[in-house]
Amino acid sequence: MKTIKIGLLGLGNIGTGSYRTLEMNRDSIASSSGIDLRITKILEKDILRKRDIAVSPEQFTQDPAEIFTDPEIDIVIELLGGIEPATAFMLEAMRNGKSVVTANKAAVAANYALLTSTAKENDVSFRFEASVGGGIPVLNAITTVLQANKFEEILGILNGTTNYILTQMTEYGLDYEDVLKVAQEKGFAEADPTADVEGEDVANKLSILTALAFGKYIPPKEISTVGITGITKADIESAGKNGCKIKLIAQTKKTSSGVVDCSVKPMEIPEDHPLAGVNNEFNAIFIRGNAVGELMFYGKGAGPMPTGSAIMGDVLEIARILTAHRN
Amino acid sequence: MKTIKIGLLGLGNIGTGSYRTLEMNRDSIASSSGIDLRITKILEKDILRKRDIAVSPEQFTQDPAEIFTDPEIDIVIELLGGIEPATAFMLEAMRNGKSVVTANKAAVAANYALLTSTAKENDVSFRFEASVGGGIPVLNAITTVLQANKFEEILGILNGTTNYILTQMTEYGLDYEDVLKVAQEKGFAEADPTADVEGEDVANKLSILTALAFGKYIPPKEISTVGITGITKADIESAGKNGCKIKLIAQTKKTSSGVVDCSVKPMEIPEDHPLAGVNNEFNAIFIRGNAVGELMFYGKGAGPMPTGSAIMGDVLEIARILTAHRN
Repeated sequence: MKTIKIGLLGLGNIGTGSYRTLEMNRDSIASSSGIDLRITKILEKDILRKRDIAVSPEQFTQDPAEIFTDPEIDIVIELLGGIEPATAFMLEAMRNGKSVVTANKAAVAANYALLTSTAKENDVSFRFEASVGGGIPVLNAITTVLQANKFEEILGILNGTTNYILTQMTEYGLDYEDVLKVAQEKGFAEADPTADVEGEDVANKLSILTALAFGKYIPPKEISTVGITGITKADIESAGKNGCKIKLIAQTKKTSSGVVDCSVKPMEIPEDHPLAGVNNEFNAIFIRGNAVGELMFYGKGAGPMPTGSAIMGDVLEIARILTAHRN
Repeated sequence: MKTIKIGLLGLGNIGTGSYRTLEMNRDSIASSSGIDLRITKILEKDILRKRDIAVSPEQFTQDPAEIFTDPEIDIVIELLGGIEPATAFMLEAMRNGKSVVTANKAAVAANYALLTSTAKENDVSFRFEASVGGGIPVLNAITTVLQANKFEEILGILNGTTNYILTQMTEYGLDYEDVLKVAQEKGFAEADPTADVEGEDVANKLSILTALAFGKYIPPKEISTVGITGITKADIESAGKNGCKIKLIAQTKKTSSGVVDCSVKPMEIPEDHPLAGVNNEFNAIFIRGNAVGELMFYGKGAGPMPTGSAIMGDVLEIARILTAHRN
């Protein structure tokens, strides 16, 4: 059994979900991979919060440098959210020879080129499966086993809040404002839902997907983005009469002239299209490749445990590379 | 640029699809991976068949040993189909230090333990993504980025012929025999459809899925298997009245006592379940993991190009490992 030590930046909901995923499945991970994954240091101010996981007080630190300069730590998981200081911390970890795993779509989309080139320069891995589609392992598929394809089009339902709102409006004939209010009460939408309902969150994810699938980085600000705040009950009824459902769709396609074209906007999706059946908080990514044809990946796009699955999946892939080299 | 040379056993439909996938996308594979993949030798009797691919006569051989003993060949793709001589050839290739990629579900399911242990003993890779779900990259996901989960249940629609027949029966209220006849005329069903309609093909695939996801190999013969020949128009109507569709489902689940339980049989799937919308020749695999929750992978389960995508994806993954070691 080989041990890989991990530093964790942030023990909020997603951090706790990642920690719990590892705690729950350490035995099966060890038996299938021969690797014992250990989160040894955690950067987190809120030490006292009740989390129902076995963390000891000495695991906590208030000083990120304690993680970056720890020679025993090979992998840093960044779950602070927001562009800064998350980006600066990830770069610092890489410069200290640590591989980095993150769920942070805002930071990855804003600083894609800098983060990927810094990882390369320092010969470390940089993985961010959880940043797009939560637990759905689409980035890994695109960058590994689907690379014998040229991708022609990607259509994604990449935001659970907006998909929940549109689903409820469709199923119960409700107005946007009424559903939003209920969604906020139930915790499915933030008190300030702007980043979700205006499509900013989706644009971040589409920027990342496009960079990986089409080899072209388009900053989120340059992606034409329309959210769902203008969608009315009447729009949904009219779509229904056309045999369609309205979904907030992130789309990238190659035009006939070879240009990569991106947009985020509500679209009418025919009811027999696989994306039309993706409801409520679920996400899906529909891909067309020139060999594989149509593919769809479906699952939970958010939540502590699905996101924890993606985080720990990335960690495990890096741990495999590191331990193979140490053979 | 590094070159990896490949030997191909069988240039039928799937072999031709794999060859064409590589021909079509060699440039993008090379630019994303830095690897030039070359199929240098092909075991195939039928040299004269028109295939619309650029194969020169000197690539063909009638002697498999010419491939197994060629020191320049690193990877052997087996696309002969059937259990023998395919299994013997794969073992011989491994014993000669070649990594093996196959789409052959019958051979993998029948000889899973022998093939995987022989690969291990000879320190070569053995990959068979195309054997389950055609172009859908589910095996890679299960064995890599989803391994931070314990799998609780897998439900699969794993056979395009039977799913096509059930879909047509459902949509047009037709009898089994009538749809089968049309499917045979259109080439969606074989002249002897037994292996498909009796569920044998699905049992092979479920045996492979179960071995990888649950770490337990159950020979196809030991999987309780019921096909679709007994399904009537009345069964489908009665399911419809219950808000369900009948699908041929391959299922593996862990019982409360921890036993891995497998079956293949027609099941009533509620219309709002993601599998209910998987129609005609499409396949899908629905997975429940203890961290990721519900996931579904959807795509084309057969056909020369989707299968070619999976084959060349596996080849590329092996080529990456081989070229990394040669650094």
